[in-house]
Amino acid sequence: MSLTRGRLLGAAGALGTAALARGAAAAVPSATSPSASNLSEPFYGRHQAGILTPQQSHTYFAAFDLTAAKRSDLIAMLQTWTDAAARLTAGLPVQPAGGGSYDAKKIVLDSGEATDLPAARLTLTFGFGPGVFVKDGTDRYGLAAKRPAAFVDLPRFNGDQMIEGKTGGDLSVQACADDPQVAFHAIRQLARLADGVAQLRWVQAGFRSAETGETPRNLMGFKDGTQTVSNPDHFVWAADGPRWMRGGSYLVARRIRIALEHWDRMNVAFQEQTIGRQKVSGAPLGMTHEFDQLPLAATDKDGNSIIPDTAHVRVANASTNDGAQILRRGYSYNDGVSFVAERWPPWRQGMEYDAGLLFVCYQSDPRTAFIPMFDKMSKIDMLNQFATHTGGGMFACPGGISQGEYVGQDLFA
Amino acid sequence: MSLTRGRLLGAAGALGTAALARGAAAAVPSATSPSASNLSEPFYGRHQAGILTPQQSHTYFAAFDLTAAKRSDLIAMLQTWTDAAARLTAGLPVQPAGGGSYDAKKIVLDSGEATDLPAARLTLTFGFGPGVFVKDGTDRYGLAAKRPAAFVDLPRFNGDQMIEGKTGGDLSVQACADDPQVAFHAIRQLARLADGVAQLRWVQAGFRSAETGETPRNLMGFKDGTQTVSNPDHFVWAADGPRWMRGGSYLVARRIRIALEHWDRMNVAFQEQTIGRQKVSGAPLGMTHEFDQLPLAATDKDGNSIIPDTAHVRVANASTNDGAQILRRGYSYNDGVSFVAERWPPWRQGMEYDAGLLFVCYQSDPRTAFIPMFDKMSKIDMLNQFATHTGGGMFACPGGISQGEYVGQDLFA
Repeated sequence: MSLTRGRLLGAAGALGTAALARGAAAAVPSATSPSASNLSEPFYGRHQAGILTPQQSHTYFAAFDLTAAKRSDLIAMLQTWTDAAARLTAGLPVQPAGGGSYDAKKIVLDSGEATDLPAARLTLTFGFGPGVFVKDGTDRYGLAAKRPAAFVDLPRFNGDQMIEGKTGGDLSVQACADDPQVAFHAIRQLARLADGVAQLRWVQAGFRSAETGETPRNLMGFKDGTQTVSNPDHFVWAADGPRWMRGGSYLVARRIRIALEHWDRMNVAFQEQTIGRQKVSGAPLGMTHEFDQLPLAATDKDGNSIIPDTAHVRVANASTNDGAQILRRGYSYNDGVSFVAERWPPWRQGMEYDAGLLFVCYQSDPRTAFIPMFDKMSKIDMLNQFATHTGGGMFACPGGISQGEYVGQDLFA
Repeated sequence: MSLTRGRLLGAAGALGTAALARGAAAAVPSATSPSASNLSEPFYGRHQAGILTPQQSHTYFAAFDLTAAKRSDLIAMLQTWTDAAARLTAGLPVQPAGGGSYDAKKIVLDSGEATDLPAARLTLTFGFGPGVFVKDGTDRYGLAAKRPAAFVDLPRFNGDQMIEGKTGGDLSVQACADDPQVAFHAIRQLARLADGVAQLRWVQAGFRSAETGETPRNLMGFKDGTQTVSNPDHFVWAADGPRWMRGGSYLVARRIRIALEHWDRMNVAFQEQTIGRQKVSGAPLGMTHEFDQLPLAATDKDGNSIIPDTAHVRVANASTNDGAQILRRGYSYNDGVSFVAERWPPWRQGMEYDAGLLFVCYQSDPRTAFIPMFDKMSKIDMLNQFATHTGGGMFACPGGISQGEYVGQDLFA
C-alpha cells in the first residue's frame, strides 16, 4: 500500500494544508523494520479480525446505545462504519462515506491524531447487543426474529456489582492496536460517524506489557494466557444458528476490579494456591515448566489436591467444565484511585486502585461456555476474594465480510 | 548489569518459587536489539531523571498525601523510596529497604507484574508539595523555614474547574516508561512502601503515540512539542533559593480536559487559526516547514496578523512572555466518557470524552514562568474554548542525588 493517512488527508485537500505528512513509509511493512507496529491486519475475511489475531498491546473497547428510530439509518451507519474500518485498519484516515443514505454533511475530516502513525496492527471487531433485537419491549428495527437462540441474556452472577454506566450496550466495537493513540483515534472516528444514530455508552481502555516473548503478566503478577483454546472452529466460531452469525462469535466482556492492595498483602505461597500456578515460572503447582499439564489428580501425602479444589486454574479448566473452552483476549486496565472501605479484616479504608482486568472472551455458544463456567467460578473460585465484576456486556459478533459488503449485512437480508 | 527482576526475585527465595524468569537478557541494552524499551535511564546524577530525559511513551503521575506525624518517618520513607527507585529504574524488583527506622515487617515482595520486563527507560521524578512545609497552619515536619520563595501557591486561574480529588498533594512522583505496565508497577511499589506514611491522593495515566521520528501529535491532531526550551540551565534548573533545590526544578501539572467533540466539529482552517500552525505539516501559519520561525510580525494585506493575536502559539511564545520559557513534558490522557451538557451553542448534551492533556512543565522559577504565562493565556488563548483545567498541582523537585544519599536529603540537613 502506498497511501498513508497523511497522504490521503493531503490529497483530499485538507482545507489549505497542502503539505503531505512525512514518514509515509512507516505505514508499509518493511523487511528492515520488522516492528509489529508497522504491520497492518487484514480487515476482510471469513472471520472478523481482532478475535484470533495475535493480541496487540492496547485496547479501547466501546459500547454504544442506538438512538436511531429507523432501520435504514442503522444500516447506513453500518455501511459508513465498514468503509471507515477498512480504511483505519489499513492505516488510512477515515473519509466521508459518499453516497448511500447517511448524512455526509455531518462528517468532517479525520481528527488527525494518527496522521503520521502506521496502522499499528489495528483491528476493529463489531458486535450486536440485545437492544438491536428488542429494546424496552420494542422491536425497533424489525430484527427480533433474527436473535440467535445462543444469544441469551447474561444472568446476574454471584458477587456481581455491576455499574449501570459501565454495562450493556446495543453495539460494541473492540479496537486493538499496538499504539493507544491509534486505538483511541479509531473509536473516536466511529463515534463521530455514528452521530444521530448511536452514542457512546461506556468505554474501557486497557493495556498489556510490551512484547518480550514471555506470556504476559496481569496486574496480579502472574502469567496470564498460558492456556489457549485448542480448536477455534469448535470453540470460537458459531456454527449453528442464523446465517448472519456463521463464522461469527459471541463476546462476553467483564470489567473486573482487582483488590491489588489486598492481594499485595498475601504472601506468594497463598497467591500461588489461589491461582494454582507458581508465580515466577508460571508452572502448575507440583510441576516445573509453564506449559506442563495441570496435575489435577495429584495429591500430597495427606491426600489433599496439589492444585487446590478452589484454585482458579482448576475451576476454569475445560476438564471441570464439561470440556468447555473460551478464547480469552483480556487487557489490564488502570482507571486511577478512589476511596474504598474494605469489607474484609482488618477493614482498611483509604485510596485504592480502580484497576484490574478488562476480561474479554469469545466463544461459539455462551450457553455452554462462559455462562456455566462463570456461574460455577463465581461461587467457588478463590480469586473471588480479590475480584469484583463491575461492568461489561455480551455481544453477538457476526462473521467476517468481503469487499462490497458491510458489517452484519446478513442480519438485515 | 546481569541481574533482572526475575532473577533477583528468584534469588531472594520467592517462597518456594525457585524457577528463574526467562528472557533475562531483555533487560540489558543490546546492539542487536536497539529498542528503546530495553534501555535504562541513569537514576543518580546532578539532576533528577525524567525532566530532560527524552520523553517515554507512557506516564503514571501520582500525588500523595502525607499522613506521618513524625519527621523521622518521612525521612525513612524517602530513604526507602530512593533505594526502591534506584532498583526499579534499573529494571530490578523493589526490595525491603533493610535497616533504618522504616517498618520493614509491612513490606512484602515485589508484586511481580514487571518480572519479565526490561527497564523500559523508567524514570521516577520526585517532588515536594506545599503540605510538606505547612499543612493546615501546622509545621508538621519542622520544614516551614525551608520553603523556597519561588515556591508560591498556584493562584486560581480564569476558567479553572478544579476537582478537589484530582488536585494538590504533599508529594509527587512522575513515573515515565516505554511500557505502561512498568510505570504502573513502579508507582504501585512506592505506594506500598509508603504505607502508614503517605497515601495516594490522585493519579493520572497518560500516553503518547509510538515513536515515528515525527513530533508526536496530541488529541487535537496537532504536532505538540515542536518548540523546545532553548537553555535548560537558565529556564529549567533552579539556581537561586535554598541549597536543597539547587539543580532541581519546579513542576506544574494540569489535567486539561479537551472538548474533542466540539473541536472535531470545527473546520481545519478554524483549528489552524486557534493553534497558529498548519495541522498536517506543523508549520507556522504563513510558513512552509514545521521548524520555521513563527512570523509573529507578519500581516496580511488588510493588516491583520497572519498568526492571530489570540492564537495559542503566539500567547505561549517566549517573546510575548518577557522571554519566559518552560520545559513541557505532557501526555495525552483518556479517562473514558461521561455525560456532559455543553455550555455553548447548540447546547448538545450527551456522552463526551473525559480525555485531553496531562500538561506537565518544569521551570527554574514559576513566578516568572508558568504563573504569568498561564495567567495571560487563561484570559485570551483561543484554545480556552476547548480546554478546561480540572486538576493538577505544583511541586518542588529537588536536585539529583548521588549514591548513598536519599531524595531530598538536603531539605532535612
